[in-house]
Amino acid sequence: MKFNNKNVYVSPKAIIGKNVKIGDNTTIYDNVVIGDNSIICNDCVIGEPTGQYYKDMDNYENPTTTIGENAMVRSHCIIYAGSVFGANLITGHRVTIREKAVIGRNCLISTLVDIQGNCSIGDYSRIYSNVHIGELTKIGNYVMIFPYSIFTNDPQPPSNQLIGSEIGDYSIITIHCCVLPGVKVGKHCLIGANSVLSRDIEDFSFAMGSPAKKLKDIRTIPSKIVEGAMHYPWPFNFERGMPWEGQDYNEWLNHNIKE
Amino acid sequence: MKFNNKNVYVSPKAIIGKNVKIGDNTTIYDNVVIGDNSIICNDCVIGEPTGQYYKDMDNYENPTTTIGENAMVRSHCIIYAGSVFGANLITGHRVTIREKAVIGRNCLISTLVDIQGNCSIGDYSRIYSNVHIGELTKIGNYVMIFPYSIFTNDPQPPSNQLIGSEIGDYSIITIHCCVLPGVKVGKHCLIGANSVLSRDIEDFSFAMGSPAKKLKDIRTIPSKIVEGAMHYPWPFNFERGMPWEGQDYNEWLNHNIKE
Amino acid sequence: MKFNNKNVYVSPKAIIGKNVKIGDNTTIYDNVVIGDNSIICNDCVIGEPTGQYYKDMDNYENPTTTIGENAMVRSHCIIYAGSVFGANLITGHRVTIREKAVIGRNCLISTLVDIQGNCSIGDYSRIYSNVHIGELTKIGNYVMIFPYSIFTNDPQPPSNQLIGSEIGDYSIITIHCCVLPGVKVGKHCLIGANSVLSRDIEDFSFAMGSPAKKLKDIRTIPSKIVEGAMHYPWPFNFERGMPWEGQDYNEWLNHNIKE
Repeated sequence: MKFNNKNVYVSPKAIIGKNVKIGDNTTIYDNVVIGDNSIICNDCVIGEPTGQYYKDMDNYENPTTTIGENAMVRSHCIIYAGSVFGANLITGHRVTIREKAVIGRNCLISTLVDIQGNCSIGDYSRIYSNVHIGELTKIGNYVMIFPYSIFTNDPQPPSNQLIGSEIGDYSIITIHCCVLPGVKVGKHCLIGANSVLSRDIEDFSFAMGSPAKKLKDIRTIPSKIVEGAMHYPWPFNFERGMPWEGQDYNEWLNHNIKE
Repeated sequence: MKFNNKNVYVSPKAIIGKNVKIGDNTTIYDNVVIGDNSIICNDCVIGEPTGQYYKDMDNYENPTTTIGENAMVRSHCIIYAGSVFGANLITGHRVTIREKAVIGRNCLISTLVDIQGNCSIGDYSRIYSNVHIGELTKIGNYVMIFPYSIFTNDPQPPSNQLIGSEIGDYSIITIHCCVLPGVKVGKHCLIGANSVLSRDIEDFSFAMGSPAKKLKDIRTIPSKIVEGAMHYPWPFNFERGMPWEGQDYNEWLNHNIKE
Repeated sequence: MKFNNKNVYVSPKAIIGKNVKIGDNTTIYDNVVIGDNSIICNDCVIGEPTGQYYKDMDNYENPTTTIGENAMVRSHCIIYAGSVFGANLITGHRVTIREKAVIGRNCLISTLVDIQGNCSIGDYSRIYSNVHIGELTKIGNYVMIFPYSIFTNDPQPPSNQLIGSEIGDYSIITIHCCVLPGVKVGKHCLIGANSVLSRDIEDFSFAMGSPAKKLKDIRTIPSKIVEGAMHYPWPFNFERGMPWEGQDYNEWLNHNIKE
């Protein structure tokens, strides 16, 4: 049904891998590199030129945009030139990602996510619907950000002194949270709905409120699923799509020691 | 001005009713059924294939998508295959609706609404701009959801035990609310702005806060419009677009007795 | 790379200024007027017909839409007929603006902003990503609205008595705020993240919370950048893109006295 090569434009300066599918009405600009076996659905714009293009079209050179192999980019996404995506990217629809974003392997970026660029997201992280990520934000590995949470960067608006926030590995920011500029959330944290994060949160904290405060250690939160068990740290209890899928998380850790 | 049949694709396996208009740049895939006198505006995708399509394109059969008569689908909407919409649907722009959503008659689904599929909305309900509805949510009849409210379904993220929330008939969720997994809101409730719903709310409650608590019975809330009158239950004071328009709500109820 | 005149439609009844660029897949309907040196990027719809069009296509006359000179409208925007934009407009992607909006000079309207029409925004105001502006809202000059803040207009939903809110010159509404119907925010105010504005806020207030209350005078807030200095009123400390850029704000005021 799809992929009828209707109203498609692919720049001769783009490098398209083997067995890549490109949807109807999609445009791929100069210096885009797409890995093998990727699917770029319909109505996408990949390698959207940066603001510099409009100032001097004749001499503009589009920065390289790299999308790793096995990507699945759903329809109506706009990805600016100058961003890099690891293998196995999955997106929803209508994602907007500005220039100089560095996104790791096996990430999910859902419908309507708005990434302002000049930021980083680690491997295996999941950014759910309608999350807004300001410039300079650093999101770790295995992080989950739930819908309508936003990351800001101007500590005293308006100013020219932008500071990003940092989210540690395995942490979960649930829905409708505001992460204020410069805030550091540790590893294995869980932030409750509708929180305003204005202070740093230490590792293993369950925090919520406005301003968000630590309420307890996540390792004391009983499972709602297995009676008498604990649910967090979640990698011991959830594996779908994670690199430890099909094996024990401890076992996986033993073979993948990182600092 | 519109409907110039430019860059339109309609599958030969789609069934298009009488007097249907289809906008430019719109795609209608296999097994879509559109009722008489409907308008599908420009740049829409109707019957978007599900994830299964990408796994086996050759043998994929698109699920049936049914849009009732007199629909008005504004531009840039994406409606997945396998959803059902009653008559007189009205949408805003850029709506995204995943598979297996069941939407009743006379519903309004405004601009940027994101419905994750596998959920239900009753008749005459209005989902305003930028509402996010997670899988398994059940929204009743004559319900109004105001902008940026979201319905979640994972009680202990991340887990595989999704539970939807339920919103009773005639209830109103105002702006920026978070409805947590499994929460049941009764009938004729009113939920104040920016609330987090983590517990069930009984019929006729005005509730708000984080967590949202009942503050009073809605039948005690004075009208801001008619001095000395009460405003809720609202069907006694508002009829625009409702089936009791032009008659007294009590009279209409008498002729439309439901349990 | 862009502007290849591919799948473009410009109504013969549109008036396009000198040196205007129009992107691929863009549609410009009847009675749109675009000022000189403007750029309308790809996949836009300018002069989208109002609801009246669908009721009587044969006799429908599209209201005039005016976009001032030097506009930069990024891709995938939908601008309804009957709105007016001053010179030097900049938009992000996927902006939706309904009819009868009156937007001043030098405004920024970022990605995913949803303006419901029949409202006004003054000069040099900046509406950041994913802000929702209901009908009848009045936003002053040099105002900044940060992401996911929303302006409502129904004081007792559902009703037919809409009342807009008003935001005074130089005021800043930060992220995730709810501005309730009829609320007036004075000049030079600063509203903290995730606030619900249900009462009027006087000039020079720093307010936050739910309901938002004045916590202090903004003129007592120390700068985070220059030790010992005050940061607000911000025009003394921020000039990028403002008409006083390159000169002292006081000096500029002396030459631009307004009531």
